[in-house]
Amino acid sequence: MTTFGSIEAGGTKFVCAVGDESLTTKDQTVIPTTTPQETLQRCVDYFQAHPVNALGIASFGPLGLNPASSDYGYITTTPKPGWQHTDFLGLMKRSLNIPMAWTTDVNGSAFGEYTAAQRQGEALGTLVYYTIGTGVGAGIVNDGKFLGRLGNPEMGHVYVRRHPDDLDFAGICPRHGDCLEGLVSGPTFEARLGRKGETVSLSNPIWDIMAYYVAQAALQTTMTLRPNKIVFGGSVASEGFLEKVRPAFAKLMNGYVTVPPLEHYIVTPLVPNNGSATLGDFAMARDALK
Amino acid sequence: MTTFGSIEAGGTKFVCAVGDESLTTKDQTVIPTTTPQETLQRCVDYFQAHPVNALGIASFGPLGLNPASSDYGYITTTPKPGWQHTDFLGLMKRSLNIPMAWTTDVNGSAFGEYTAAQRQGEALGTLVYYTIGTGVGAGIVNDGKFLGRLGNPEMGHVYVRRHPDDLDFAGICPRHGDCLEGLVSGPTFEARLGRKGETVSLSNPIWDIMAYYVAQAALQTTMTLRPNKIVFGGSVASEGFLEKVRPAFAKLMNGYVTVPPLEHYIVTPLVPNNGSATLGDFAMARDALK
Repeated sequence: MTTFGSIEAGGTKFVCAVGDESLTTKDQTVIPTTTPQETLQRCVDYFQAHPVNALGIASFGPLGLNPASSDYGYITTTPKPGWQHTDFLGLMKRSLNIPMAWTTDVNGSAFGEYTAAQRQGEALGTLVYYTIGTGVGAGIVNDGKFLGRLGNPEMGHVYVRRHPDDLDFAGICPRHGDCLEGLVSGPTFEARLGRKGETVSLSNPIWDIMAYYVAQAALQTTMTLRPNKIVFGGSVASEGFLEKVRPAFAKLMNGYVTVPPLEHYIVTPLVPNNGSATLGDFAMARDALK
Repeated sequence: MTTFGSIEAGGTKFVCAVGDESLTTKDQTVIPTTTPQETLQRCVDYFQAHPVNALGIASFGPLGLNPASSDYGYITTTPKPGWQHTDFLGLMKRSLNIPMAWTTDVNGSAFGEYTAAQRQGEALGTLVYYTIGTGVGAGIVNDGKFLGRLGNPEMGHVYVRRHPDDLDFAGICPRHGDCLEGLVSGPTFEARLGRKGETVSLSNPIWDIMAYYVAQAALQTTMTLRPNKIVFGGSVASEGFLEKVRPAFAKLMNGYVTVPPLEHYIVTPLVPNNGSATLGDFAMARDALK
């Protein structure tokens, strides 16, 4: 039987998993993110104990993604201490002699959602996946391939028009101040209100301000890519929040281009329990084996 | 010898042209845009007098672009009187029994610029072409194919952050007011200053305001697509104007992602004399013949 492996590599934990031919998870382990040496060795140990035919890796970044570049397969200029210039893919390849696929964490999630939609019979040309959590990132799958030739998309760092009730907030992006990430990522709750987003009721007007910004991101995405679907994952993007984003989007769009019914267009992930990236990794591994 | 035809269909004029195997224009005629019946018949007459092996059409829109839809090949809901629901491609196919390619005017230009860059040996993954003239539109070529699954891109209608010296101007987009097109299209000069843009010196501060808006569009495009190149055509987008856009873009980007040197990244068209769409149509016709 053919099996596929997944490494979802995050700043706090690595999730390693084994899937069967139908891409169903059969085994999974969580490894805390410590040093590169220790963490990656534990991934190798896991897949030596649980052999797979191919491996998909979706990692925090920034990453070297250009196969023609000397930093291909590396975690490059990450602020995470000790992880700069880590030859992640190279170590895996030297230790596990199987086909591998390598992309960003959010691309992995995008590919998982694309795969899950296809299984439901949705004919997707283009799917965009945003994560809104510690940061804001996005991945784009177009006809089964990732977009982003000179590097992965960085749609967390677009500018949006400021909400009139939020003009005093400077934003928290170290590079841009009040770009999208600087205005809507999870830590903005602490910055604005002094408490965590999980504790802020959806009736708090801060959510309407956030919805205005996220709706602008969805509008930019729509006007640029005309995708079939925009998925929002991450801790901030609950269904209750998206219920505020949809009318804000409709108001900004003002009927200009036709999109699918908004409850099928601006959506939370199909794959439950934050499993999008693992499914995406399995599907990427399957493609790598072909 | 194989020859290729081009129809560049605009609201004021149609340009029909014949190109040779090297995609060089050998003959060209300009037909004023009157009624659909008269204008399209003159196109048919031209290609009956100048037979070609395949035809590329780049038209003003909006267009039916989905081959599976009943409005494929139509100019659909255009505001241009008399042209709503015109079966442009269908009439051409009934009259001229040759392979044809069909896309938007700005996609045609994008494909022409992509073709011209390839000929110069530029390895382009993704090219974006904006036109800033009567309106603002954009086309995207990714790996030789157009992006936009649910319809063509409408990047003229994204929102941008307002320039502090321009807050009194409401914008002129009938649908959105102060979206990008409502702030930077050619007619905004008359709306703001009471005179045509051609008469406004580049030292007028209005150009700095415009550059701030166009730089935001370039930034959104960069963060979303990570293209190899963004080409700006149309009457407003002179090299002198782009010299103002580039530093505004660099300031907004603040070094976050690496792009090519800006004088090779934010550029005017390679093809001279507004010829991008004709070259693109020839190249599309060549692909249609394959």
